[in-house]
Amino acid sequence: MRAGSDEPRTAERKHHHLPIEASRVHWGYFSRSLQPQLEIASGDTITIETLTQHASDDPELMITGDAAAESVFGWTRARKNVDRRGAGPMDASVFGRGAGEGFGVHICTGPVAVKDAQPGDVLEVRILDIVPRASRHPKHSGRVFGSSVAAWWGYHYGEFLAGPKPREVVTIYEIFDEAVAPHARALYSYRWEPQTDPSGVVHATYDYPGIPVLPGTVKRRHDVLDGIRIPLRPHFGVIAVAPREVDFIDSVPPSYFGGNLDNWRLGKGATVYLPVSVPGALLSVGDPHATQGDGELSGTAIECSMTGTFEVILHKKTDLAGRPFADLSYPLIETETDWVLTGFSHPNYLAEFGAQGQSEVYAKSSLDLAMKDAFRKMRRFLMNVKGLSEDEAIALMSAAVDFGVTQVVDGNWGVHAIISKRLFHQDDS
Amino acid sequence: MRAGSDEPRTAERKHHHLPIEASRVHWGYFSRSLQPQLEIASGDTITIETLTQHASDDPELMITGDAAAESVFGWTRARKNVDRRGAGPMDASVFGRGAGEGFGVHICTGPVAVKDAQPGDVLEVRILDIVPRASRHPKHSGRVFGSSVAAWWGYHYGEFLAGPKPREVVTIYEIFDEAVAPHARALYSYRWEPQTDPSGVVHATYDYPGIPVLPGTVKRRHDVLDGIRIPLRPHFGVIAVAPREVDFIDSVPPSYFGGNLDNWRLGKGATVYLPVSVPGALLSVGDPHATQGDGELSGTAIECSMTGTFEVILHKKTDLAGRPFADLSYPLIETETDWVLTGFSHPNYLAEFGAQGQSEVYAKSSLDLAMKDAFRKMRRFLMNVKGLSEDEAIALMSAAVDFGVTQVVDGNWGVHAIISKRLFHQDDS
Repeated sequence: MRAGSDEPRTAERKHHHLPIEASRVHWGYFSRSLQPQLEIASGDTITIETLTQHASDDPELMITGDAAAESVFGWTRARKNVDRRGAGPMDASVFGRGAGEGFGVHICTGPVAVKDAQPGDVLEVRILDIVPRASRHPKHSGRVFGSSVAAWWGYHYGEFLAGPKPREVVTIYEIFDEAVAPHARALYSYRWEPQTDPSGVVHATYDYPGIPVLPGTVKRRHDVLDGIRIPLRPHFGVIAVAPREVDFIDSVPPSYFGGNLDNWRLGKGATVYLPVSVPGALLSVGDPHATQGDGELSGTAIECSMTGTFEVILHKKTDLAGRPFADLSYPLIETETDWVLTGFSHPNYLAEFGAQGQSEVYAKSSLDLAMKDAFRKMRRFLMNVKGLSEDEAIALMSAAVDFGVTQVVDGNWGVHAIISKRLFHQDDS
Repeated sequence: MRAGSDEPRTAERKHHHLPIEASRVHWGYFSRSLQPQLEIASGDTITIETLTQHASDDPELMITGDAAAESVFGWTRARKNVDRRGAGPMDASVFGRGAGEGFGVHICTGPVAVKDAQPGDVLEVRILDIVPRASRHPKHSGRVFGSSVAAWWGYHYGEFLAGPKPREVVTIYEIFDEAVAPHARALYSYRWEPQTDPSGVVHATYDYPGIPVLPGTVKRRHDVLDGIRIPLRPHFGVIAVAPREVDFIDSVPPSYFGGNLDNWRLGKGATVYLPVSVPGALLSVGDPHATQGDGELSGTAIECSMTGTFEVILHKKTDLAGRPFADLSYPLIETETDWVLTGFSHPNYLAEFGAQGQSEVYAKSSLDLAMKDAFRKMRRFLMNVKGLSEDEAIALMSAAVDFGVTQVVDGNWGVHAIISKRLFHQDDS
């Protein structure tokens, strides 16, 4: 199962490459029992290819001609290369959507095992580079495309002004990542029409990932967002280690293990620290985004296949004292300028809700709960990491911490708290 | 009642100056029946002095020697220069705190009448400059000070980790606004102790504005936020026109008329558009802030007396079509780079809750409600002002609009929605 990797050697940093194809992804779920694709050592770097689960919104632009994408999305009546999509039952006995039921949607590449990682350790994942994956279709070769869906899980879905109500809308974008001001422009959009998947199941809504949308089954509108250039913020929506509580976790709700954080600050140059829960950590990456607003209102970003290069550093439990990520119980993001703490409606919904967690969390999300969590985490960070008293921490939060809405569409809604690193590192000028 | 103003003349822009003193403020409330301090014409500029209601947290640093501040804060057993503080009863028959009961806390300078302004018009208020007001105490002359209170209305107040529970903490800052990187540094802090005001009322908590805190009544701690420099974001917490619904409005909950917006983006170079509700508009400014984080978590910013210079432009109802502020029903902020739309838990709590509005709004605030309002306002803005379809607006919001927490302490909690102006004005490079 090892792909493009070398065995790590002591005291020597290795570079690994994890290309993508059907056998190297888990689609729509995390699991502590997945076999690692490869093992790396602390300090190694790794290039991980990822695909957007929305490539099937326009297969010609985003799948055709790309052997890896064709492998992952490959699906005929006779054969579905990646059968399980989601953490639901393989026999689709709940809704009949397909194997895994689409309870979780993200194509995740991995997992990658980290040598010597044990529960209680912290995994530092530095994002060294992010490069969009260009089309390999002969007619579009070298161009980059993405898709965004205003879907039934979007925040707006119960709020339509005009009919038809409800409706789902897919917008296809071209990505100009090499422009002086990198941006996306809309190419066309279409309203979702019932799609019959290759297995013969009809999807009246966008309820299962990877359904190929063929020309002629939808009506394309080309005069969409004319003249508007959307600045890029390339990042990975999903960076996860495997959770400990249960097996087969829906990839949608983020939590203490990371996962579908959907925070655009996780771009090139940023780092995320994740608490290790299982031996080997089992790092996975996916859900590549060309850009996203805080909120991710419609339910998706501009989703766009991308390849990331990461430096992965393991911090052993016994070496954490005095470090910013000591006593870490949630994904902590560090950018060039800021610390970004991730608050959730339910910080560990798997533990909180038990066996029903994966459905309960969707019903009980609230920005008010996420704000409370972000507040508590920032107070703890300022006290434990920065050595402030509780009174100092409260004062500083009021004067200098910015709370923002991360997302209101991922089951476990998020509020982040940002504090500038500059406050603590200033000369006397 | 006119102060430092000239009568406006046709076709000639005038500059006005509204200095502060006791007769030129309304403390803790807005009212449609206040006599204007002066009248200005559309296109005029005006310099308005404002005082922080927290100057009394250290009278020596922020009041003594400053004749204007001494006038506003002047309070002896025999005489209280500004008796009404808040929209409550003058006989303090609810809690016995003092006249107006502190139902509303902000010292507002004004109101300023705008010639020809009528309900349905829009008032554009451009913030041309903001200058901190230096101490005029001989020992501290030229230095600038501010105060922040972690108060009973703060978000943290029910959440203390350590005792004593609960407690209120005042932090006094020095403001270095002329530094290369303008910043604030904490000087000292103290825990609130029961204070006897000059009228003899004992205030066990920070429940009435302008109580002079005298040295010896509190214990100062000087090792506070050592080495931390907090970057400045000077802005006015309160910019308001008079609301139409009722008289004597608590200054704390912001709403459609502006008021206590507490958004740090209302700084130098920014503009706020306010819907005019009463003849003359009745513009007031106050609650000056040296800086604040999104959230204003403890209940206050770093409050610091400042003087603003504004250009005020009246847009008549009949001339609004096609303008970004056509059909405006809320405070719309424009900065050099962004449009910032202000969402509230209750967009017009006075209309929504009727006679009990000013108490109900405190009980029913929620970020979830404020998010819904911000979403609806941004969708409407993108459709009505930018000419997008509903589907385009939803797509753009997901890709490019940032939702953030404005404040969770002002009764009517706020979420703002930000979209970059750059998206709509780009060349072909």
